[in-house]
Amino acid sequence: MATIKDIATKLGIAVSTVSKGLNGASDISEDMRQRVLDTAVEMGYASKRIQKLGNRKVCILIENMEYENIDQFGYEIIVGFKLSAARRHCDVSVIPTNLNMQTQEKFDSFMLKCGYSGAFLLGFALHDDYIKQLDKTTVPTVLLDNYIPNKHVGYVGTDGYNGIDLAVKYLADNGHKNIALLNGSKNSMVTDERYLAFTQSLNRYSLKVNPDLIGNGYYVPECAKYHVSTFLEHGATAIVCASDLIASGVIAELNRLNKRVPQDVSVIGFDDLPIAQHLTPTLTTIRQDRVAIGKSAFMMLEELISGVSISKLLLKPELIIRNSTDRCSQTNDFLAFDALK
Amino acid sequence: MATIKDIATKLGIAVSTVSKGLNGASDISEDMRQRVLDTAVEMGYASKRIQKLGNRKVCILIENMEYENIDQFGYEIIVGFKLSAARRHCDVSVIPTNLNMQTQEKFDSFMLKCGYSGAFLLGFALHDDYIKQLDKTTVPTVLLDNYIPNKHVGYVGTDGYNGIDLAVKYLADNGHKNIALLNGSKNSMVTDERYLAFTQSLNRYSLKVNPDLIGNGYYVPECAKYHVSTFLEHGATAIVCASDLIASGVIAELNRLNKRVPQDVSVIGFDDLPIAQHLTPTLTTIRQDRVAIGKSAFMMLEELISGVSISKLLLKPELIIRNSTDRCSQTNDFLAFDALK
Repeated sequence: MATIKDIATKLGIAVSTVSKGLNGASDISEDMRQRVLDTAVEMGYASKRIQKLGNRKVCILIENMEYENIDQFGYEIIVGFKLSAARRHCDVSVIPTNLNMQTQEKFDSFMLKCGYSGAFLLGFALHDDYIKQLDKTTVPTVLLDNYIPNKHVGYVGTDGYNGIDLAVKYLADNGHKNIALLNGSKNSMVTDERYLAFTQSLNRYSLKVNPDLIGNGYYVPECAKYHVSTFLEHGATAIVCASDLIASGVIAELNRLNKRVPQDVSVIGFDDLPIAQHLTPTLTTIRQDRVAIGKSAFMMLEELISGVSISKLLLKPELIIRNSTDRCSQTNDFLAFDALK
Repeated sequence: MATIKDIATKLGIAVSTVSKGLNGASDISEDMRQRVLDTAVEMGYASKRIQKLGNRKVCILIENMEYENIDQFGYEIIVGFKLSAARRHCDVSVIPTNLNMQTQEKFDSFMLKCGYSGAFLLGFALHDDYIKQLDKTTVPTVLLDNYIPNKHVGYVGTDGYNGIDLAVKYLADNGHKNIALLNGSKNSMVTDERYLAFTQSLNRYSLKVNPDLIGNGYYVPECAKYHVSTFLEHGATAIVCASDLIASGVIAELNRLNKRVPQDVSVIGFDDLPIAQHLTPTLTTIRQDRVAIGKSAFMMLEELISGVSISKLLLKPELIIRNSTDRCSQTNDFLAFDALK
């Protein structure tokens, strides 16, 4: 493992300058400090130092996720994480990031500079710089809903297979045969998983997979208008959505097309955000326990910091039945076929 | 939730008798005690009572797994579990079970009678009575390598996809094109997962899936003799095994057939039991960190007890490269074809 002296030799500077750079002294230039930090990371000095500090300081980095009030997806996740951290006497900094920050400084350098022993990353996409750097990081890191094959990086999320299966089983038990899926955006692990889970569940309950009843949207209500009429043309009597926000858009679009929810079409959301209870009708949804996600993320981070390399930790979802779903009112397949005309 | 009085009414006995049954008093018959316990479980009184006790007492139930000395699979798992439990001031009882015990008393009744707040089940198969009862249990329970869709039951294990992929990638990088898999017994979740992972990894590295190079054995060395010669007939230059014990049988069988390991055939095990270092040649293997499995199982059980329903927790495996693998010595496909003659 590299020492301070190795870093000094490599950069051709004094050991004292390296030391100043690592300790954030004010009498060296910002540029020199960054060179010291980046070299420390490159030479594998970073993780040793952070471990040595033995501090109890971690951070949550947030990109592209709303979290500031209780109606938003990230809010309870952060609450759960902080609750568990407080119980274990660990400080948590919540840091919103942006593309600029990610371009300016490498993830490992940032963590070393701030002296965090680990990070929980929320809302990042696979193409983000920080995520791309995780292949080689030695900083214990937990990702929500994303998987990186590095022993210092863990993945926390909700068991999507189980969630989609609860929804499809419930609809099948209630006589629905033409079930549609309005999924999230493509090129996401969670989207792929839900697609696979959906087709497997349809098979499990002896229902046909119809590609015309499967669409990819984005996590906003507006995406509904591009898919709902196609689903109806192909006889859909129920629509499973990848989020409550998408479901709210689907209900609005069904209303616009003079279809009643749930009498004509049943709608199921995903997440159980507070909005689910305030929609008309109230929304049946696959609940992600976000406080538990946050608690589990902290627990996982603590284990990664102590050298236990957890790969995945998935929580069980729960189907919350409200008023947006009902028994299928179509009594035979002919009616579904009829809808095509 | 049922009360002691409800149980008394249902059984037509005095409240004091119910109380004696629940508290293990000696002045009621064993038969009456069992009726009280079973009724308490049936009426949903059990879990409330265990929670109320607020005790720190859990158990590890073991069926069909060796664990008594350090060479055996279960040993370090139990060490890890006990280490984490001790750190959190929780008592652990290790209880070997058998078919008889499982037939005599239901799982929930047993747990209630002994006052355990949760259990870690090792070595059980899906057809065991205790596992079949887990669909409906309210007792927090962690299973090794098995999944039950009940929010009180969690699954801990090693990420098999990642493990098999590490092995196949390493062999592909070393020029092997005809890679065989000697898997574990059929009808097991872990076996199915490894089979899927194997075919996916072959595709990933542009290698063909050949059904003649895939076999199902049991977790004993003897199973090797039914598969190795078939693999050789079909040109295998490397064999990935579902356990180190199977790999030891594969090496013995290759020796018997006058094949050298690794010059003629590379062999990879799974687990990294102590035996892996003592085989000739020493065994390249996919390491399961068994201490970490035990630690994670305890952590998961604690979360389940506190109401966080974790579905799955998978640890990252590691490929340990020793002397049973080498670069493929066959320089083209013709030689593989030649082996068929």
